[in-house]
Amino acid sequence: MSLFRQISRVNRLQLLSGCMRSISSSSEPLLDLSVDGQGIAVLTLQRPPVNSLNLELLQQISQSFDDLAAQNCKGMVVTSSLPTVFSAGLDIKELYKPDIKRLNLFWSNFHNVALKFFTSEFPTATAINGHTPAGAYALAMLSEYRVTAKGNFTIGFNDTALGIVPSTWIIELMRHTMNSRRAELAATASTMFSPSDALKEGLVDDIADDKAEAIEKCKQFIKKFNNIPKWTHSETLRKTRSIPLETLKKFLAENPNQMTESVMKKDTQDSLGVYIEMMNQRKRQKTT
Amino acid sequence: MSLFRQISRVNRLQLLSGCMRSISSSSEPLLDLSVDGQGIAVLTLQRPPVNSLNLELLQQISQSFDDLAAQNCKGMVVTSSLPTVFSAGLDIKELYKPDIKRLNLFWSNFHNVALKFFTSEFPTATAINGHTPAGAYALAMLSEYRVTAKGNFTIGFNDTALGIVPSTWIIELMRHTMNSRRAELAATASTMFSPSDALKEGLVDDIADDKAEAIEKCKQFIKKFNNIPKWTHSETLRKTRSIPLETLKKFLAENPNQMTESVMKKDTQDSLGVYIEMMNQRKRQKTT
Amino acid sequence: MSLFRQISRVNRLQLLSGCMRSISSSSEPLLDLSVDGQGIAVLTLQRPPVNSLNLELLQQISQSFDDLAAQNCKGMVVTSSLPTVFSAGLDIKELYKPDIKRLNLFWSNFHNVALKFFTSEFPTATAINGHTPAGAYALAMLSEYRVTAKGNFTIGFNDTALGIVPSTWIIELMRHTMNSRRAELAATASTMFSPSDALKEGLVDDIADDKAEAIEKCKQFIKKFNNIPKWTHSETLRKTRSIPLETLKKFLAENPNQMTESVMKKDTQDSLGVYIEMMNQRKRQKTT
Repeated sequence: MSLFRQISRVNRLQLLSGCMRSISSSSEPLLDLSVDGQGIAVLTLQRPPVNSLNLELLQQISQSFDDLAAQNCKGMVVTSSLPTVFSAGLDIKELYKPDIKRLNLFWSNFHNVALKFFTSEFPTATAINGHTPAGAYALAMLSEYRVTAKGNFTIGFNDTALGIVPSTWIIELMRHTMNSRRAELAATASTMFSPSDALKEGLVDDIADDKAEAIEKCKQFIKKFNNIPKWTHSETLRKTRSIPLETLKKFLAENPNQMTESVMKKDTQDSLGVYIEMMNQRKRQKTT
Repeated sequence: MSLFRQISRVNRLQLLSGCMRSISSSSEPLLDLSVDGQGIAVLTLQRPPVNSLNLELLQQISQSFDDLAAQNCKGMVVTSSLPTVFSAGLDIKELYKPDIKRLNLFWSNFHNVALKFFTSEFPTATAINGHTPAGAYALAMLSEYRVTAKGNFTIGFNDTALGIVPSTWIIELMRHTMNSRRAELAATASTMFSPSDALKEGLVDDIADDKAEAIEKCKQFIKKFNNIPKWTHSETLRKTRSIPLETLKKFLAENPNQMTESVMKKDTQDSLGVYIEMMNQRKRQKTT
Repeated sequence: MSLFRQISRVNRLQLLSGCMRSISSSSEPLLDLSVDGQGIAVLTLQRPPVNSLNLELLQQISQSFDDLAAQNCKGMVVTSSLPTVFSAGLDIKELYKPDIKRLNLFWSNFHNVALKFFTSEFPTATAINGHTPAGAYALAMLSEYRVTAKGNFTIGFNDTALGIVPSTWIIELMRHTMNSRRAELAATASTMFSPSDALKEGLVDDIADDKAEAIEKCKQFIKKFNNIPKWTHSETLRKTRSIPLETLKKFLAENPNQMTESVMKKDTQDSLGVYIEMMNQRKRQKTT
């Protein structure tokens, strides 16, 4: 058992939150990272109310890859601590009327997380246990395997409904994950799928009775690679995903701040404003 | 209701046929264009006996895109006025022993129609109500959604059987529409599919009892985009179809008259001659 | 009937083994090539114990393409003379502690065979009648159509389990043959499939009761092209497979000896050594 795994979970979290503190303005860890006796990590998003991916959470996800690689981890399962939401996707507050410098940093961290998934030394999987729209589903697609729990929630990539045009590399990742034609229908019409439809359409690879079983199935997937040399796995994965990966690299090489420019368009800001106002009205209705 | 929709259907047709007259040698409109109360247009091909796509019909389809875009149309459904044929595809008379100048114009109009579908501001769909071989199926693939009526007819891309090698961009569009592997089998062997097999193989997205229901289902598809900003839809579509679209653009940039050169090859002209003779014999047999 | 088909099968084999002798150090033909009355050839791999693809066998496969093209052959079915093995794939003895000059020649012949399948003048199919791992399945994918007999064996691409990273062009061929996403899972995890699962996942196109029926089904596939001009078929095939084909061409243009360099890496040689030792132990266990 490696040194890393011998350190108690509490101590490791303190260690991680120490790491985080240096790169984040948040003093609280926004995720929990624990490694089981077989060397498989579970990264649990815990940023209530809806695990929105803000700058700090993205930084902590990115840091987790480095920490786990340093410990020669066997694989990583991503899940959520919340009962009904995996994640609401990118934090809309980062996108609407933003500080441009922070927005650039936000996007560079998002792309950094994407590159770490694409080039991970160890296999990754996602245990979906609640709503998974937009950027949250992009995060799930970045991992190699997806298992969803059953439940009354939806999964999909609904950027167009928010007035956002998905990045080409995300579209290529959808075309890789689903059937190319079905990806077109889903991406243009912002279709959200029930867990069973998500399985049928290829958005997820398996379905489980609950979150615990979803995590277990993800671990079973990771164990498939026990007898396969690590670098053989990661180089082969990188090659099978060469189209979305090279599209992302080209996108960043052309102009690393493209997404900032795209989000700052008046049309997109207006759409986001309408969406935020709609969300606020819903909240007010709930509280009265 | 927009001004365009208030103009009576007859007047609009006169207007369109007026437009057509200036770009076409035909004094008759070869298609009918009507817009319903919800702003969805139905473009009905009406060039008996088999709706062959000749230069003038392609020009009128192209013009329809401009007219509908100018009227802020919500979407367009393509169908046929004929009871048993959607379209026989490209008019073989344009290809066999042609006037080279007209053949170049023919191809530039065909590619122009393709580009307009790829970059359309509004969603497009095709209601297939009869035979749909070769170029007719290419036209159907260019629209975003395909519904076929049930019936005793076939759908597919049978260019190789006519001695014609499909353009690379059309092959990429098939690989996008169907499963890549199944597209290979269908394209090389010129397989034609019954409506139910076409559904199973992904050549069409839905099946309807008759033409009216097929049109209605196409309209239902178009209404999915009611709450999605138009430019978000069209940019996302353009991105999901970037491979066939960029292949077409590159093809045209290399040599806009490639198709003319390809069709003028002796082998192809010979194949077309054999095919036309076969068709003429069938006609003679029918009339005796 | 062509002259070629009139020559008795025995004479033709002598002729072929004569051709082989000039390009091969083996005095025995490692395959059997016979052409039926309809002009369809059956190429039977016969290099016991497991039809490993060594330099000489690859040279003979390559030569067969030239011989059959010269005879205006209608198509070619590849199968195996062995009862339980189609082929074990690339001969591991060519890869482990090799003579570098011979290894370069081995790879150039392997790539040459691949290019001949991609650009074949006639349709090709594979009748799988036993185990088909790694390079053997690559060979099967190179042909246009695959029928497997039923049986207690497996089919798939398990290079990563041997510590080998598949070439990008082979991964692109898998992504073309199977669903892109399923190809990723199969390639990274070195999944081997039963005949019925191989059918379900698209690794093969049809399943037969036995080898004879598998060959017959391959011939039926080839007959689909009886009325399609040969060059139309082969140019269309080349276009539908443009991604793996262009990837291979680019790979060879960059550095024709890339595979030699990859195989000579210490990690890969170590993995191969472990694998060979494991195989030798199994043999010793069987003989004691």
